[in-house]
Amino acid sequence: MTGFISFVSSGPGDPELITLKAVDRLQQADVVLFDDLASGPVLGHAGARAELIAVGKRAGRPSAKQEHVNALLVEHGLAGRHVVRLKSGDSGIFGRLEEEMAALRGAGLRYEIIPGVPSACAAAAMAGIPLTRRLTARRVQFVTGADVTGGLPEAVNWAALADAQATTVVFMGKRTFPKLAAGLIAHGLPPETSALMAEAVGHPEQTLLRDTVAGLAARLTGAAADHPTLILYGPLAAFDPPAT
Amino acid sequence: MTGFISFVSSGPGDPELITLKAVDRLQQADVVLFDDLASGPVLGHAGARAELIAVGKRAGRPSAKQEHVNALLVEHGLAGRHVVRLKSGDSGIFGRLEEEMAALRGAGLRYEIIPGVPSACAAAAMAGIPLTRRLTARRVQFVTGADVTGGLPEAVNWAALADAQATTVVFMGKRTFPKLAAGLIAHGLPPETSALMAEAVGHPEQTLLRDTVAGLAARLTGAAADHPTLILYGPLAAFDPPAT
Repeated sequence: MTGFISFVSSGPGDPELITLKAVDRLQQADVVLFDDLASGPVLGHAGARAELIAVGKRAGRPSAKQEHVNALLVEHGLAGRHVVRLKSGDSGIFGRLEEEMAALRGAGLRYEIIPGVPSACAAAAMAGIPLTRRLTARRVQFVTGADVTGGLPEAVNWAALADAQATTVVFMGKRTFPKLAAGLIAHGLPPETSALMAEAVGHPEQTLLRDTVAGLAARLTGAAADHPTLILYGPLAAFDPPAT
Repeated sequence: MTGFISFVSSGPGDPELITLKAVDRLQQADVVLFDDLASGPVLGHAGARAELIAVGKRAGRPSAKQEHVNALLVEHGLAGRHVVRLKSGDSGIFGRLEEEMAALRGAGLRYEIIPGVPSACAAAAMAGIPLTRRLTARRVQFVTGADVTGGLPEAVNWAALADAQATTVVFMGKRTFPKLAAGLIAHGLPPETSALMAEAVGHPEQTLLRDTVAGLAARLTGAAADHPTLILYGPLAAFDPPAT
């Protein structure tokens, strides 16, 4: 009897923004491995008999090594269990999915990948901002604001990121945003470009803050990265958030 | 009595890849306005009393004018109905959401936006390809391969798109891919860069085809755009699709 692993995207955190297929897999699971980012109410969908194991990798906190997560996945899979590996947002976007897939392949274990609502899409929806605009934002890009060291990644495509005709979403970039913004402005992005900071998207403590790129950079100088944060900038529509 | 409009993202087409919140709104709806792209099994979630209205804007087919869709939304909203405006994938990505929001605001109507699974995330999951990779693809971008005329958009940020260190997903770009690929290669993207074409993602007739950028461009010369198509290229992981 061989186990099976479902990589399940949990969406942004709101338990209603998870897919039917994800709920089904949580209900079937023998064991659920979850990060702090994906935890909370979403885990309420798991069946009563499921063993829930936190393997938290939350930015800025002591975290399990990736190798430990890989080993747990393989161990429970080889024990014949149906394992759900829960990942916040969409598992294919900044989710370290590749390393875990490779570990399962190495152990001869089968898996599936269930896509989900990226936190970037949820933040934009809650702020009332379409990520693309017909004439002014025909490109949308997601980038990470921090590499494994916590600093701004060294190789940055400035022509791509300083493009005022694209909507950019920066993941995990609160601490490094002042440095990123300085680079963007040096590479031609107007300092008054619209920006939005979304914290704890999909959670009750969610906040949305509108500013400009330069204004947000000034606010965030010396800031701590307490909540998971997304920063959007570009030709953002000037709508207010939806009424609900 | 004033109506209310829910912009509901249907996900890629698989009725199990829709969120619980989207299902709830479909069940509550008095009327559902849907595009061909979002139709089919997903509509099975609508309540029995819901009026279903096709406003198809499928690429390459005779389509309702955007103004007509806007007018319908406003008309049903002002009639006091709960309207679901169903949009394929995530409504904020290449969904003409902004025009419809503006029409509702002009009419003083309230709305909400429910994010969903982008078809790009679903295609990548089904192909077993993480959209980001820890060291080699720290940026993912979504672009459209066709403007309103059906041709390649004129203003292309070639430095952004010809970047071999990013995963790019081209929406609606099957017909124009040979021209796009020529431009990418002229701007330095290696012709042997991995590519994947995904058609009818999330539908029973889904197909996934692996090739290189140059190889796919050669295949698609003179091709028709029959199914909704996504093309991914970049440092795509070489995994096979998941076993299920």
